[in-house]
Amino acid sequence: MGLLKILRVNLSKESIKEEEIEQGDFIGGRGLGVYIASRELDPKVEAFSEGNKIIISNGPLAGTLVPFSGRCNVTSKSPLTGTLFSSNAGGMFSYELSKTGYDVIIIEGKSNDPVYLKVGDDSQIVNATEIWGKTVFETLEFFKKTGLEKGKVACIGPAGENLVRFANIMVQGHRAFGRGGLGSVMGFKKLKAVVLDGSQHKKKKFEELARELRKKIKRISSPLKTQGTSNILAIIQEIRSLPTKNFQHKEFENADMINGDALRKYTLRSDTCYSCIIACKRITRSERYGIVTDGPEYETLAAFGSYICNYDIESIIKANDLCDNMGIDTISMGSAIAHFMEASGKWGDYELAHELIVKTAYRDGIGDKLAEGSARFAKDMGIEAIAVKGMDLPAYHPQGLYGQGLAFVTSNRGADHLYSSYYLEELKRKDREALSKEKIPEIIANENKNAILDSLILCKFSRRFYSIEDFLKLLSITMSRDISEEEFYEMGGKIITEERRFNFKAGITKEDVLPSRISIPGLKEALREYYLLRGWDKEGAPK
Amino acid sequence: MGLLKILRVNLSKESIKEEEIEQGDFIGGRGLGVYIASRELDPKVEAFSEGNKIIISNGPLAGTLVPFSGRCNVTSKSPLTGTLFSSNAGGMFSYELSKTGYDVIIIEGKSNDPVYLKVGDDSQIVNATEIWGKTVFETLEFFKKTGLEKGKVACIGPAGENLVRFANIMVQGHRAFGRGGLGSVMGFKKLKAVVLDGSQHKKKKFEELARELRKKIKRISSPLKTQGTSNILAIIQEIRSLPTKNFQHKEFENADMINGDALRKYTLRSDTCYSCIIACKRITRSERYGIVTDGPEYETLAAFGSYICNYDIESIIKANDLCDNMGIDTISMGSAIAHFMEASGKWGDYELAHELIVKTAYRDGIGDKLAEGSARFAKDMGIEAIAVKGMDLPAYHPQGLYGQGLAFVTSNRGADHLYSSYYLEELKRKDREALSKEKIPEIIANENKNAILDSLILCKFSRRFYSIEDFLKLLSITMSRDISEEEFYEMGGKIITEERRFNFKAGITKEDVLPSRISIPGLKEALREYYLLRGWDKEGAPK
Repeated sequence: MGLLKILRVNLSKESIKEEEIEQGDFIGGRGLGVYIASRELDPKVEAFSEGNKIIISNGPLAGTLVPFSGRCNVTSKSPLTGTLFSSNAGGMFSYELSKTGYDVIIIEGKSNDPVYLKVGDDSQIVNATEIWGKTVFETLEFFKKTGLEKGKVACIGPAGENLVRFANIMVQGHRAFGRGGLGSVMGFKKLKAVVLDGSQHKKKKFEELARELRKKIKRISSPLKTQGTSNILAIIQEIRSLPTKNFQHKEFENADMINGDALRKYTLRSDTCYSCIIACKRITRSERYGIVTDGPEYETLAAFGSYICNYDIESIIKANDLCDNMGIDTISMGSAIAHFMEASGKWGDYELAHELIVKTAYRDGIGDKLAEGSARFAKDMGIEAIAVKGMDLPAYHPQGLYGQGLAFVTSNRGADHLYSSYYLEELKRKDREALSKEKIPEIIANENKNAILDSLILCKFSRRFYSIEDFLKLLSITMSRDISEEEFYEMGGKIITEERRFNFKAGITKEDVLPSRISIPGLKEALREYYLLRGWDKEGAPK
Repeated sequence: MGLLKILRVNLSKESIKEEEIEQGDFIGGRGLGVYIASRELDPKVEAFSEGNKIIISNGPLAGTLVPFSGRCNVTSKSPLTGTLFSSNAGGMFSYELSKTGYDVIIIEGKSNDPVYLKVGDDSQIVNATEIWGKTVFETLEFFKKTGLEKGKVACIGPAGENLVRFANIMVQGHRAFGRGGLGSVMGFKKLKAVVLDGSQHKKKKFEELARELRKKIKRISSPLKTQGTSNILAIIQEIRSLPTKNFQHKEFENADMINGDALRKYTLRSDTCYSCIIACKRITRSERYGIVTDGPEYETLAAFGSYICNYDIESIIKANDLCDNMGIDTISMGSAIAHFMEASGKWGDYELAHELIVKTAYRDGIGDKLAEGSARFAKDMGIEAIAVKGMDLPAYHPQGLYGQGLAFVTSNRGADHLYSSYYLEELKRKDREALSKEKIPEIIANENKNAILDSLILCKFSRRFYSIEDFLKLLSITMSRDISEEEFYEMGGKIITEERRFNFKAGITKEDVLPSRISIPGLKEALREYYLLRGWDKEGAPK
């Protein structure tokens, strides 16, 4: 905002162009019309002349729900009074103008033949010979047949065409930019109508859709609402994919000490992001540590729990709070500590874990090495790093979820459950420990979908509540055109290919590999198939 | 929309500038971040180098109520993975960013001293020596003291400052742009925090205020809701100001045949402008003429009623519909016919009136002369025109409302009850037929207020429901700063002076006069006083 968008139309030159103007002290509507006229309209110009202009300007409240704001302004030199003349009209016209994305339309010059002006995504001057001579109501009927309801139409009748000095510009048939004869200025310009057909007023459309979606989400019951992400831990343990002892195992014998049920007695209330109604965030309290803090989320419960063989849940709440205060990633920190514990054999020592968090943040002693991340740290210590492209694995053990394992490998930003959330689909399958050929296009679709979600930006949990139709609606509003399901996935794929192109230019060319501790039969073949389906070469490089 | 607004900040050059980018197929968020990076970030750049950039990008849904959309994206080259890295965080940050008016913040270069970036109406790079070394929670406390709540703050802790390769950018204390170590990119740039303090997200603020205003308006009972504008007729007749027989009289003996009560039996339902909850428009039906149509409003009831001595209300419904279909102004048309009837003596002939409407629109016979408007028509016929600056008087007879009479004269666009609605205040006074000195500043204030209403654009009826505080709130949101009552009126005055300047340049210099049929004692002196208070010269010209 602040900047106002102008559509400048010259009927003599048959030109249409976009401009911008800083919103100054002239506010909008009449003030803005007067300001523009004072800058560019010659006061001595004849009202009936090529030099007169019609300035249609919305107010700053247009399109909002502020009562009384549903009006639009027109300023021009009046053929009745000879003065500068501003007039405003009600109805739906100001709302429709706000939907075109333009705050102002300036109409200059004069057409030889009757025309009308269409303003929207595809603004144009259209021949109007067919409707010249028609009454206002007949003109509305003409536009209705082309799909334009009366609220989108400002037009003149015979009075405007015949230069009656008190002809109005009629809006919606029975409303008028009245009194000053501005309809005859349109008539002189041979301009029968201005019709609005915008789809740019996206926020409005989003809000309308939001109402539907909110209703829908309220009806759906979900453990995310009642337990937050901690509900996932018991499920992942159940399917034997909970990374334990730095990924040496995939089940944690004390999982029930750190799961959603265990966290409940430390939970005070839930919290939420702007506009969300799930409120998955848990606000927790630890009396032992004297803190009230956010989380921990599932990933943190695992990283400071099963990753390091720690089943003291209050110590995880504390570790989470410490990481937040130091500004450090909980997955990478927990994983780096797991690497340290593997090297030192000090499994489960949560006080050591707390100490290492602070040491890492301040690069104090061993912390200076941990601060380099697990990959560099492990290399230094002569052990193997549990990471892909230098990023630590999140809490879905690939040994129990082969498809997600492949997705960790293909990810452009390293091992990541948010780049592809294929585990959500794989969870429901029986062949989790297989890399059947059909999984590969599913993984690609999942990555593509997430790329769109990251661009719209929608929380990944929306996948559990929104149908593909919901996502298509949101993207279609964004792009101002209908997006098909096919195109939706294609657009996501383009983002991913662009990222990969960047990485290859950066020299990251041979890093689509899992740590050797994890063995997935058929991974190489699957990867080749994945590249093929992506349209990349055998090395995974975009063409 | 369509165009996205970028704030580009270079920490090395200490420069901040605004740019724009067309919203293409990259959607927003991650897609947009990847697109910008692919165009302007060297893939071979070191993550810890002056050449790396931090791209903060909102999604197209930011600030809407679409559930799951409360997230913001950051894209940069990761010091952990070496890849392009996009990460998004929840909380209030995306909402706060949407309030700054920027869709994207691009941070380039590297500062020598610790700084933080403030983004809003007055974006700036601020020295942060005082908070360098502080933890995340301490940093939030620092900003809280300056009035910035945690939802507006993205910052790094010691981990970011010390280039821990998995340091996060923390949002709202416990949320994170996580995983890729982007906090350490901020640390390398000596950028402690990005704080958002925007007030540009006006639509949002308008909607919040709208909710209050709607509640308030619902509670207020008003004849506008039940009768529409037709309710005014009986009141104006009562105070003896209803223009009758082309302003020869100010009472109409048959007023009760054409007032709000009379119209009720032809009324089907009410109708409304976008976002209004008054619904003052009446949809009426005339069986005699076989029409369902909008209106007539009060002005039309008078113009085709008392102005021409016609008390057949159905004929007024028909006249209104005819004017709409021809695209002609009902006040000017009724008044022009009144002039014709005065010249011809054919008072009250409504069939003639209907005929003259069509003849005027098509400039057929006498219609060709009427089409020039009452002022030119009267001159032609050798009778006096009841108009100011060529525009016909609306239905408030100045002989019963002296203050409104002065306001008709001063109006920059001719005799007009919408330019100044002083009659609404004068109605409540006993000294309506006087021009006491105190009325003059009141008229000026009224004109100034209407100029603001016309610029915000608010329907004049808002005056009956909104307090001055309500108007100040709406204007303050629009201007992104607190507007005092004094400034409110001053801003309106500036618009009026600008209009007058245009008119004087146009040669309209001596037209602040009432028709001689109307005699208001002391008008000349009052006009001089008015010019003086306006700061104009003795001829009414702005200096």
